[in-house]
Amino acid sequence: MKSPDDRRRSDRARTAILTAAAESVAELGYAKTSIEGIAARAGVGKQTIYRWWSSKGAVVLDALVVEQSAPDADWPDTGDLAADLRLVLRAIAAEFADEANSATLRALMIDMQHDDALSREVMTRILGPQLAATKRRLTAAQAAGQVAQGIDLDIAAELLFGPLYHRWILRTQPFDDAYADVLTDLALRAIAPKG
Amino acid sequence: MKSPDDRRRSDRARTAILTAAAESVAELGYAKTSIEGIAARAGVGKQTIYRWWSSKGAVVLDALVVEQSAPDADWPDTGDLAADLRLVLRAIAAEFADEANSATLRALMIDMQHDDALSREVMTRILGPQLAATKRRLTAAQAAGQVAQGIDLDIAAELLFGPLYHRWILRTQPFDDAYADVLTDLALRAIAPKG
Repeated sequence: MKSPDDRRRSDRARTAILTAAAESVAELGYAKTSIEGIAARAGVGKQTIYRWWSSKGAVVLDALVVEQSAPDADWPDTGDLAADLRLVLRAIAAEFADEANSATLRALMIDMQHDDALSREVMTRILGPQLAATKRRLTAAQAAGQVAQGIDLDIAAELLFGPLYHRWILRTQPFDDAYADVLTDLALRAIAPKG
Repeated sequence: MKSPDDRRRSDRARTAILTAAAESVAELGYAKTSIEGIAARAGVGKQTIYRWWSSKGAVVLDALVVEQSAPDADWPDTGDLAADLRLVLRAIAAEFADEANSATLRALMIDMQHDDALSREVMTRILGPQLAATKRRLTAAQAAGQVAQGIDLDIAAELLFGPLYHRWILRTQPFDDAYADVLTDLALRAIAPKG
């Protein structure tokens, strides 16, 4: 069994590694980030990293999951879909508006375009859980009569996030609460029961 | 005045240059594409390119504008917004589904993330005109009572295209007519008058 001191040391090393991984991706991009580089930044040996993570992709994505809100976290559910959706879209707009955070995501997104393994890992660990959490909230809203029957909830989830990614990728315009609120209203019109 | 022969020679050279530019971006990406490389592929001298275009960005974007449908082209307007929107979203889905076309766009999109001048040029020459043409069609539909009053038509245009870009960038799912049609229905719900 580990002593409390061992455990504290382990926790410190894990945190240092995850911080180093996030910094490295933001500065160098995913492609130029290496296990060696992360180990050097974190002041640990490579073997310490391999004790917990099997690959660069695994440690980098854990770092991002720690930095972002947990991707599989449930949406707020106050019973008021409009209020909850507004909150979530404002939070995503703020994440895209944050320069450091946006730089990390941009580096990852660029490398995903060429790297199928990374692309699958991002889907499995980040996007998939986010879309699933969104679908859970929409399913609850549908049961409560706030979303029309027969709406494809997978594609509805893409409709919520798509415009934000479009604006971010194409670098067309700023992100602010006012923009998030207009999107929220349009998205609600798309999914609400008619009449 | 130019003779007919001169004009035919000019047209052939212009076409060769635009084809070479499009091929180079698809193969090498925008960053590694050069005026020298385009000239060599097209079998012309650099000065021939500079006679018509001031920069790499200018010639590459002209090549893409030729390859894609003209970005400032008006939308179809049959008077039936649903039918026109379905046609346009299916066409965009087909462009993203086309491997060669998608590779060129992906190379450009990646380089836009680091290159502010390119990003502005893409906005001015491709995306801006596309969004403006979309807004013209939505404005006509609004006047015809097919789009609710008070809808922000700039953000509505992003709502139409955003989900397609989201799916393309995140490489989550295939593009087909069935997908385009579900998106069309959701987008129409978002912008149609209520009741």
